[in-house]
Amino acid sequence: MDGNRRYAKKKNLEEGAGHKAGFTSLMSMLKYCYELGVKYATVYAFSIDNFKRKPEEVQTVMDLMQEKIEGLLKEESIVNQYGIRVYFIGNLNLLNEPVRVAAENAMRATAKNTKCALLICVAYTSTDEIVHAVQESCLDKWEAKASNGVENDKKGEIQEVNGVEREEKHEEHRAIQLVDIEKHLYMSVAPDPDILIRTSGETRLSNFLLWQSSNTLLCCPRALWPEIGLWHLVWAILNFQRNYSYLEKKKKQL
Amino acid sequence: MDGNRRYAKKKNLEEGAGHKAGFTSLMSMLKYCYELGVKYATVYAFSIDNFKRKPEEVQTVMDLMQEKIEGLLKEESIVNQYGIRVYFIGNLNLLNEPVRVAAENAMRATAKNTKCALLICVAYTSTDEIVHAVQESCLDKWEAKASNGVENDKKGEIQEVNGVEREEKHEEHRAIQLVDIEKHLYMSVAPDPDILIRTSGETRLSNFLLWQSSNTLLCCPRALWPEIGLWHLVWAILNFQRNYSYLEKKKKQL
Repeated sequence: MDGNRRYAKKKNLEEGAGHKAGFTSLMSMLKYCYELGVKYATVYAFSIDNFKRKPEEVQTVMDLMQEKIEGLLKEESIVNQYGIRVYFIGNLNLLNEPVRVAAENAMRATAKNTKCALLICVAYTSTDEIVHAVQESCLDKWEAKASNGVENDKKGEIQEVNGVEREEKHEEHRAIQLVDIEKHLYMSVAPDPDILIRTSGETRLSNFLLWQSSNTLLCCPRALWPEIGLWHLVWAILNFQRNYSYLEKKKKQL
Repeated sequence: MDGNRRYAKKKNLEEGAGHKAGFTSLMSMLKYCYELGVKYATVYAFSIDNFKRKPEEVQTVMDLMQEKIEGLLKEESIVNQYGIRVYFIGNLNLLNEPVRVAAENAMRATAKNTKCALLICVAYTSTDEIVHAVQESCLDKWEAKASNGVENDKKGEIQEVNGVEREEKHEEHRAIQLVDIEKHLYMSVAPDPDILIRTSGETRLSNFLLWQSSNTLLCCPRALWPEIGLWHLVWAILNFQRNYSYLEKKKKQL
């Protein structure tokens, strides 16, 4: 959702107004998505790197986020209208407490919704997600090893690390596989995205869903995020549909 | 380098002829790159997934690859002309022996070249690269732990895994950090790419440099790979230059 600040500048608005216009766009786009049958919508709301912005700006965004997350739970909200399960994706410990609590409440309150899903990436970067998944995988292996008990501990006492020894340990640690990492990715609750839209004509992923977007159609409309509309979405979907059989064939054959 | 097979079909050539035309394009593009001052050029020659293609086709590409890799070492080759250090990036153990030996020879023979670099991704996918880096990081930690010796082994004997215990182990295993993984990525020999060009109008990364392309300008010209030319490269570079100060600012501020 790139271009909120540039939109504010372009329209001579104060900075916060750009983000508010961006939120209105988000609500419209989600509505279009769910009406058109999209089951999973993922939005990049706030990157870990965004914490490096001016403290006032971060605070403004956090306040807006808290307000809007709390709004999601109201009776008339889009969440109840479409039966949306809300996930917050990222290292939520980096959020300030009111936002974190609001996020956790929203996840709890919508946990039984099954029609479609909204994944909101906050305090997220793809590389952080991968490192986190690696750490969780290590912990898993460690606990599996600990419950295997004494046998493995004895191995640890062997001091001499010659080639063969290294090889064996290597094998043991090769135990962390692709599936282990994938299991622990925050995004494991959803399938890989079919389409990724980045606004403002930027053709970069900026550390968003790197692991998941390997076979994703990338669309980079020139519109700033608050300027995005139904036609951008329809265009992206038509493009995806036009290439669908080809993309599916590619996924299988490669 | 997408579109070799489609090029052959379009021109009514046999399949192998598309790859040969693709190689000619590659040589021209590399020449343009090094003439224009590009220090690192990385090409996606063969993905791990490509091994799933028809055996005859894989064999044709492997034979072509062996021939061309051996050609790189000849006196008159582009490598000697520009003082290029050649790296093969990927799980080289998946290659057949003649190709692997040719690749290793080429790396050895050019190891002292310092002017510019050519990175050739073979038997590569980005997720495989990351998993490999994770496994190497685990091995490092393991060896560091083994040389710490008995103390840690005793910890392993504690059977009761309550919250605190889990927390401590967690901390210990959180030891794998972003920098550990980055150090072990095959691509750690080069800086992250500024520009990524994928031909054939496909706007997907197909498991290429996912970790490294977070801040990379993506260009997706419609030309099939054998049809690519100097102007596509110039266009990509002008676009990059036009956005350079903005991209640099973004990298710092975010």
